[in-house]
Amino acid sequence: MAGDQVTLLDLWASPFGMRVRIALAEKAVKYEYSEQDLWNKGALLLQMNPVHKRIPVLVHDGKPICESLIIVQYIDEVWKDKAPLLPSDPYERAQSRFWADFVDKKLYELGKKIYTTKGEDQEAAKRDFIDSLKLLEGELGDKPYFGGETLGYVDVALLPFYCWFYAYETIGNFNIEADCPKLIAYCKRCLEKESVSKSLEDPQKVYDFVVMLRKKFNWA
Amino acid sequence: MAGDQVTLLDLWASPFGMRVRIALAEKAVKYEYSEQDLWNKGALLLQMNPVHKRIPVLVHDGKPICESLIIVQYIDEVWKDKAPLLPSDPYERAQSRFWADFVDKKLYELGKKIYTTKGEDQEAAKRDFIDSLKLLEGELGDKPYFGGETLGYVDVALLPFYCWFYAYETIGNFNIEADCPKLIAYCKRCLEKESVSKSLEDPQKVYDFVVMLRKKFNWA
Repeated sequence: MAGDQVTLLDLWASPFGMRVRIALAEKAVKYEYSEQDLWNKGALLLQMNPVHKRIPVLVHDGKPICESLIIVQYIDEVWKDKAPLLPSDPYERAQSRFWADFVDKKLYELGKKIYTTKGEDQEAAKRDFIDSLKLLEGELGDKPYFGGETLGYVDVALLPFYCWFYAYETIGNFNIEADCPKLIAYCKRCLEKESVSKSLEDPQKVYDFVVMLRKKFNWA
Repeated sequence: MAGDQVTLLDLWASPFGMRVRIALAEKAVKYEYSEQDLWNKGALLLQMNPVHKRIPVLVHDGKPICESLIIVQYIDEVWKDKAPLLPSDPYERAQSRFWADFVDKKLYELGKKIYTTKGEDQEAAKRDFIDSLKLLEGELGDKPYFGGETLGYVDVALLPFYCWFYAYETIGNFNIEADCPKLIAYCKRCLEKESVSKSLEDPQKVYDFVVMLRKKFNWA
């Protein structure tokens, strides 16, 4: 809407922040991007998200919205005239919410285990990670997007992790495409959309970031 | 709606199942209750929730909906003519989703830590648990319900844990009301509603269940 003041408090490498960037791009919402220093949190972040003290936070006309999937739903409800992200049917909406929640509960947690553990724990995380991707691949089926013919809520939730795959693969010494070729083909197809490509980061840069985290927190 | 076939796969002690029971009661939806044996999962549960294999699952006209907060939103969207649970304003909806998510991420996890750990870990969990309740108490303020004048989404998410408080307190040897009198007064007030009182279980029975879990899994 004209006159909206929209600011995104974010960290460039965050897959959760990237979700919000894709949603805003799909809706063609203009916004100010405000990079945060997570190791020296600024007054604005602490004021806007006093409970969790983390990014992303969308500040819309002075009011903060926190937690990426909640922000994406908010964006879909406020800027509803363009590029609907959630389906209108209640059952399909519930299914979309289920798979987006699955990405948070499984994919993110298992991906993190790959670069924070070693040995048998890391091997187990890699197996579970691939199993989770295969479930997603099965749910996608032969559709262009998870919701059907257009980019939607589950795609927005999932696609940011694609630019983290190279870090998982390099640190875990495995190849995702070998097990999940259809899911990788889907990610590559989605990257042809500008809303996705301009919101995701360079996998090599993400890898360097993860290597830095591993050194900083003694995970390596 | 007349003619709806609704079945709830549930476990009597589950705070997540109780959320669905409150929501169905608020909407006056008739349903069949199907108690599940979590240590000997039946074919119906495995068929209806093949991904997480857990309760609650709402089966509506043969179609399964999983994950309690997703089910509550589904109920609110399908039976929308009575007792709305989520506010209509997008910002207030986002705030409701934020606090319901907070209950899952903080209250449930910390409560579980109280009865699965000992010593300093348990002490830390008790402190964090009280801190989380205090944040909720602050958000409630002087309103009768979290959303305002009527029972809503955050109340449905939170209230089932009230019948678990006695187990947390007895095992952790602390008193929640001493630190959070306003929140406990709110819970007692909400219990005057039949939709809540008939959906929650006897605290002593829940305590006995948790004691059984602690023995079974060697947490005690």
